[in-house]
Amino acid sequence: MTEINHQLVLASRPQGAVTPDNFRLVETPLQPLADGQFRVRNHYLSLDPYMRGRMSDAKSYAAPQALDQVMIGGTAGEVVESKHPKFAVGDKVVAMFGWQEYGVSDGTGVQKIDTTHVPLSAFLGPVGMTGVTAWYGLNRIIAPKAGETVVVSAASGAVGSVVGQLAKQAGARAVGIAGGAEKCRYVVETLGFDACVDYKAGNLYPDLKAATPDGVDGYFENVGGEVLDASLSRMNAFGRIALCGMIAGYDGQPVPLRYPQLLLTQRLLVQGFIVSEHMDVWPQALKELGTLVAQKKLHYRESIAQGLKAAPEAFIGLLKGQNFGKQLVKLI
Amino acid sequence: MTEINHQLVLASRPQGAVTPDNFRLVETPLQPLADGQFRVRNHYLSLDPYMRGRMSDAKSYAAPQALDQVMIGGTAGEVVESKHPKFAVGDKVVAMFGWQEYGVSDGTGVQKIDTTHVPLSAFLGPVGMTGVTAWYGLNRIIAPKAGETVVVSAASGAVGSVVGQLAKQAGARAVGIAGGAEKCRYVVETLGFDACVDYKAGNLYPDLKAATPDGVDGYFENVGGEVLDASLSRMNAFGRIALCGMIAGYDGQPVPLRYPQLLLTQRLLVQGFIVSEHMDVWPQALKELGTLVAQKKLHYRESIAQGLKAAPEAFIGLLKGQNFGKQLVKLI
Repeated sequence: MTEINHQLVLASRPQGAVTPDNFRLVETPLQPLADGQFRVRNHYLSLDPYMRGRMSDAKSYAAPQALDQVMIGGTAGEVVESKHPKFAVGDKVVAMFGWQEYGVSDGTGVQKIDTTHVPLSAFLGPVGMTGVTAWYGLNRIIAPKAGETVVVSAASGAVGSVVGQLAKQAGARAVGIAGGAEKCRYVVETLGFDACVDYKAGNLYPDLKAATPDGVDGYFENVGGEVLDASLSRMNAFGRIALCGMIAGYDGQPVPLRYPQLLLTQRLLVQGFIVSEHMDVWPQALKELGTLVAQKKLHYRESIAQGLKAAPEAFIGLLKGQNFGKQLVKLI
Repeated sequence: MTEINHQLVLASRPQGAVTPDNFRLVETPLQPLADGQFRVRNHYLSLDPYMRGRMSDAKSYAAPQALDQVMIGGTAGEVVESKHPKFAVGDKVVAMFGWQEYGVSDGTGVQKIDTTHVPLSAFLGPVGMTGVTAWYGLNRIIAPKAGETVVVSAASGAVGSVVGQLAKQAGARAVGIAGGAEKCRYVVETLGFDACVDYKAGNLYPDLKAATPDGVDGYFENVGGEVLDASLSRMNAFGRIALCGMIAGYDGQPVPLRYPQLLLTQRLLVQGFIVSEHMDVWPQALKELGTLVAQKKLHYRESIAQGLKAAPEAFIGLLKGQNFGKQLVKLI
């Protein structure tokens, strides 16, 4: 019996919000391996906001996702068949195999990982791209000094949760912004932030002001829109803003920045960045993050959807902020 | 007969646009000098957009101008009376004596200058704060490489004209944005920019696109508003924006930034700055700028209003972009 690889391809580009029919399920029989290739059974698929940008064909930092091709995405899995001298059956790997159950590679872009002390899924989260994103923005852009205040939006999320914990370890005051009382409680009680503002409570600016009595020295932006406006209004002179995500503008309606003159009056630094363009920091960052996870000094939370078919709805939920922690799809 | 010092004080804060009655003319008799003091007859008063910010009491980088006090401002003049060992009658100086004909000092914040090769007024322009502003933003924030494209708004103005000429000397393509055909002609023909876009012609974005076929790598912002929006839309990946002035927002109505997501998608750096906070660069910058002016390798243009009483109207014109070159008031 031929085994089947289930795949999700981009069927159409979103007109506004992403809908389930932007994706199509495809069944492809597994092909025999050529010499120098190996096959991976993907255990986890990472869902990330950047994928929304790829679904559009607007000008962006990366080529758009091609129609009728497997959706891009980070994966973690296990080698199940190999004609490659350096990858053996049983090896655990992270790769960018996308939204599918199996991937075939000649080794390019595939990293072997050691799951002795760090769980497989963590390599898609705090010890993967999301962790390094947090590490880079915090350490290389915000560079907080002890006693400074760092605010991060989407604070209960995969990136934000790491930002705040690293800020605390740097001696800064960490203040999160998240949606809902439950997430805020998690941010303070489990992650150890000093405070968390619930933007859904309807008093974003006054609540943020109360949570940042000394103003804000560093802001890590994952969201955009009114959250960015509010945070900008709290920035101290010489503040630094690491611009990592702006979900609020992903659906095609540009969300203006209301008070750009604050960038001047407060002499702010704003730096947009994409962590994949800073590969030089990855080894150091992953080493530090892996150590923290292994020592249980870095908490993280996962929101796991079950089965490939659940990916579209999970992704749509992620864009709406319905996930709680790093959004993964378990494929096996 | 007692000599009179004419002074302009801030009479009221602007409600929206600045009006002449925000200022009041005051006549103060000259007071005898104390030991260690000297008196300067101001020859030139510099008018600069930052003064608009000081007139409001909104949160800003500097304390607001106090009501009923002499308006702040840079001046160039000559020592006319001295009880100070280091300042002699006839010495030429630059200082911050503000909108008045005479100033008294103990030397704090007063710089002696050498007018042998550089005219007195130039120390308020290309060899003064405006020149250093251009130098800092261009060299320390934009840092253009040869072959890159640098765009500067208010290109015929005191700061912009220096930015473009320094960019050319660095081997970059310099593109100006200015208001009106005459200013644009000046920017290209006299200042030597590669191109200049007339924002008053009504086709700002298409004209800017045509003038920047390879996109924009560095943008020096003096204006804000729609000019910033248009330039942001032309930025290449890893572009740098030096944020120096945002006249468009000075009158109290915040002007939103329409496409902040470009900061992320193009991984832009934005840095607001105030040149007075970077005193470490002044000696190097002034030396380079003074040499260029003395060698006539740096063109500059002055718009000179006559007499202290002309200052309010000249300042209002400056805020409306009616000046052509560095706005000065000749006081003698």
